[in-house]
Amino acid sequence: MSELQISPAIHDPQGQEKQQQAAGVGILLQIMMLVLSFVLGHVLRRHKFYYLPEASASLLIGLIVGGLANISNTETSIRTWFNFHDEFFFLFLLPPIIFQSGFSLQPKPFFSNFGAIVTFSVLGTFVASMVTGVLVYLGGVMFLMYKLPFVECLMFGSLISATDPVTVLSIFQELGSDVNLYALVFGESVLNDAMAISLYRTMSLVRSQSAGQNFFMVIVRFLETFVGSMSAGVGVGFISALLFKYAGLDVDNLQNLECCLFVLFPYFSYMLAEGLSLSGIVSILFTGIVMKHYTYSNLSTNSQRFVSSFFHLISSLAETFVFIYMGFDIAMENHSWSHVGFILFSILFIVIARAANVFGCGYLVNLVRPAHRKIPMTHQKALWYSGLRGAMAFALALQSVHDLPEGHGQTIFTATTAIVVVTVLLIGGSTGTMLEALEVVGDGHDTTLGDGFEVVNNRYMTRFDDEDSPSGSGFRTKLREFHKSAASFTELDKNYLTPFFTSNNGDYDDDDDNNEQHHEEITPFTRRVDFYNRG
Amino acid sequence: MSELQISPAIHDPQGQEKQQQAAGVGILLQIMMLVLSFVLGHVLRRHKFYYLPEASASLLIGLIVGGLANISNTETSIRTWFNFHDEFFFLFLLPPIIFQSGFSLQPKPFFSNFGAIVTFSVLGTFVASMVTGVLVYLGGVMFLMYKLPFVECLMFGSLISATDPVTVLSIFQELGSDVNLYALVFGESVLNDAMAISLYRTMSLVRSQSAGQNFFMVIVRFLETFVGSMSAGVGVGFISALLFKYAGLDVDNLQNLECCLFVLFPYFSYMLAEGLSLSGIVSILFTGIVMKHYTYSNLSTNSQRFVSSFFHLISSLAETFVFIYMGFDIAMENHSWSHVGFILFSILFIVIARAANVFGCGYLVNLVRPAHRKIPMTHQKALWYSGLRGAMAFALALQSVHDLPEGHGQTIFTATTAIVVVTVLLIGGSTGTMLEALEVVGDGHDTTLGDGFEVVNNRYMTRFDDEDSPSGSGFRTKLREFHKSAASFTELDKNYLTPFFTSNNGDYDDDDDNNEQHHEEITPFTRRVDFYNRG
Repeated sequence: MSELQISPAIHDPQGQEKQQQAAGVGILLQIMMLVLSFVLGHVLRRHKFYYLPEASASLLIGLIVGGLANISNTETSIRTWFNFHDEFFFLFLLPPIIFQSGFSLQPKPFFSNFGAIVTFSVLGTFVASMVTGVLVYLGGVMFLMYKLPFVECLMFGSLISATDPVTVLSIFQELGSDVNLYALVFGESVLNDAMAISLYRTMSLVRSQSAGQNFFMVIVRFLETFVGSMSAGVGVGFISALLFKYAGLDVDNLQNLECCLFVLFPYFSYMLAEGLSLSGIVSILFTGIVMKHYTYSNLSTNSQRFVSSFFHLISSLAETFVFIYMGFDIAMENHSWSHVGFILFSILFIVIARAANVFGCGYLVNLVRPAHRKIPMTHQKALWYSGLRGAMAFALALQSVHDLPEGHGQTIFTATTAIVVVTVLLIGGSTGTMLEALEVVGDGHDTTLGDGFEVVNNRYMTRFDDEDSPSGSGFRTKLREFHKSAASFTELDKNYLTPFFTSNNGDYDDDDDNNEQHHEEITPFTRRVDFYNRG
Repeated sequence: MSELQISPAIHDPQGQEKQQQAAGVGILLQIMMLVLSFVLGHVLRRHKFYYLPEASASLLIGLIVGGLANISNTETSIRTWFNFHDEFFFLFLLPPIIFQSGFSLQPKPFFSNFGAIVTFSVLGTFVASMVTGVLVYLGGVMFLMYKLPFVECLMFGSLISATDPVTVLSIFQELGSDVNLYALVFGESVLNDAMAISLYRTMSLVRSQSAGQNFFMVIVRFLETFVGSMSAGVGVGFISALLFKYAGLDVDNLQNLECCLFVLFPYFSYMLAEGLSLSGIVSILFTGIVMKHYTYSNLSTNSQRFVSSFFHLISSLAETFVFIYMGFDIAMENHSWSHVGFILFSILFIVIARAANVFGCGYLVNLVRPAHRKIPMTHQKALWYSGLRGAMAFALALQSVHDLPEGHGQTIFTATTAIVVVTVLLIGGSTGTMLEALEVVGDGHDTTLGDGFEVVNNRYMTRFDDEDSPSGSGFRTKLREFHKSAASFTELDKNYLTPFFTSNNGDYDDDDDNNEQHHEEITPFTRRVDFYNRG
């Protein structure tokens, strides 16, 4: 945090002590705001007041304290201690948040909607970025808003397309929503971070070496970042799985050693990717997915429980801190109000871009899905609605301040911060109402997820058998090919990866958290028979 | 870590990216060294090779990597990324280590030896500091070693009197040692950190305001630091106990909230003390003791398990990192060999000073203890032997580089680093042999601690009843008074504090970890009766 700034006065003991003391006060204030956020969030949740979710509450606390500091005389000293370096953000706050996104991903609903999620997050994010970028550029050309060069508009489009899962999903869980919708929203928002950051980096490279770049090189750059980071992350995840499978650490008195090693791997993955000039965020995300799916089941039961709680705890702290900081920052920053136009039009454009993403990709996905599996319009609307922006967009905007010329980066940063605040407060506060209006609220999260899923999975696994009848255009066939490859990945995972990387033998029901809650239910086998009989 | 140094180049995107990448590589290397330390430590322990405990292994890894970096050409760049700011050390590495010392303290053996532990750690550390300081000063006057002003000698004496519990205690646990000896060594090394840091701060203040200070003011300063920090720590601990007692967070689905709040308190205590110009280390230590004793038992069972593992994990990581760093630092530093004499004589003097501490205080304690409770000479020798220096001495020496004029602070820092390496490698490696030679090795840690302790506790509780016969000088009576007050603290705790701050009703056997292992044993009550019958 703020103490990273003490260094200049390091050889002045008196001044250093004063500064250390001030740092102490600054951190003390931050801790108190954290505690307040947690307590307030808890109280609001207990009273089922969904108009102010935890993230909004943290943001508001930051705004209020920032506003108070702004009108008081002590502004400068408080300002100093709150203005943390972005290295702190990128190296300590962001990694746990992103890792937790991957780590808390439920493998089964995720894989059963794999095709749709990849469509939304890869193709859809690309579409959204381009649409936003082009619109912002056109807006600049037409003097509606601050004019940015085209590449910078695309960078802004990329970074603002990263949606944040936290707030919406916590409400989904609270209210209980359809399992497929939950998987779609969560999967999409997790993977589109990776896509957005890769796009952003590609555009950033295009900008800095603008001469002699052709479209082909841009594609190569993008694949380099995305595939390279993904491979690094998956590779580290696989190595950790093998280590824990064969090291024999899952005995009682070695729990601490086991956990120490386990928590070092995500960070290792992050730093490896950064060291290779790839994206640490993308890498740690995939490490999270792989470690949850394979490494996790090689741990002893106690360590499993511990690492889940550990990453949950660390990411909660980091996330709350990020929202507080964002609120504080927007209250403290001297925003030039010439940006208001930019902010307002940006909000309009991202709404349009997200519509292009969701309804476009939704149409494509529905082309190949059988009638009973089509994504209903209500779900598409819910998905469109839940595109609030959070830590990732903020982080990339922070980065853009360094990457772009002074005024441009600052404009993007201000606009992004404002968009984050607006979307978190508005969308976060109204998600409950929206979900109820769209009638996608289930009767309870756990049951929905458990029940809904098995059926989905079976349908999914059998779909390709009873659906081989040729139907439609070549495009549709290609889409179906893609979906089939997603299904064959599930097969590959079940038959080869899981047995190779974990101690259990391919039956990956074992490592699913939900199973613990469904012991009394019918077994997958009877369920499957049941389904066949019904179908 | 090292990334904290990126700031100067922050507005040069290209350079910044390079530096961020280099920071990534630096941290990557640090993570690999951490993993290597854990794995090596585990392998050595599994093969019962006690000559190289984990701390020594970490230190050696640091030494080797530092040495390699030193002879290679890449020195400068690696050097840059390893030379972390001491703010990082004081704000992120040290607090978890010190908190864990307090938190892992077993209340029962600790309180049953409370008088002896306080004697050794308060009076003893004072004696040791003074003896070391005076000897170092005399050595300087007699041209045996680098001459330092008297106050700086006392500062060095204070900082070098802080002993490190980790290495020796892990061997004690491994081999199983007498429960009283274990409590003495652990309690002494935990509390003497607080004493050493308070003494150091007092001396530091005396130095900077050398004019117009009298002996009385020194005492006041010392009490201010020690008592003030202790009160802040205990106060925060009590507040946390009350919060968790009444907030009703110990239900299943609030585990994350409960743990988030719990882990924020120690840091809060640390920062509060720093903000009040007190010692954060002393404060967090007492917060650890209080939170373990009161707050901990107000948590839900799952959270109890989690926070224990959490603090254990965090402190293991921090500690291993500190030892690696110390090894790395001593290999990289350009030590001027004019300091060799200072180092050698310092080692001799701290051995003498520790003897004065242990055997002197041992004599005093034995004056008041009844015959069957006297600390045997073998225990005193073991206590004397286990005075290796670790993170705390290192941290204070790091501080002294800023507090003292250039050459003096550097000399103290070099000497301290050398003493840490020598004592960790020599004492750490030979503790097993020593314990066996002194024949204080029990037949198993768990049994010893469980069995031995109950008896000790009963003896202790009854001692004042059957020993009221007047015997000996007024000094002895005073000492006994002091011991009696320690006993009355136990009574106060049992009758008032525990019922007030925790949910259970004064029977603090409940929150003792060892009890879990002794369910099948006879109850305390039958044991007590049994003891009375025997005695």
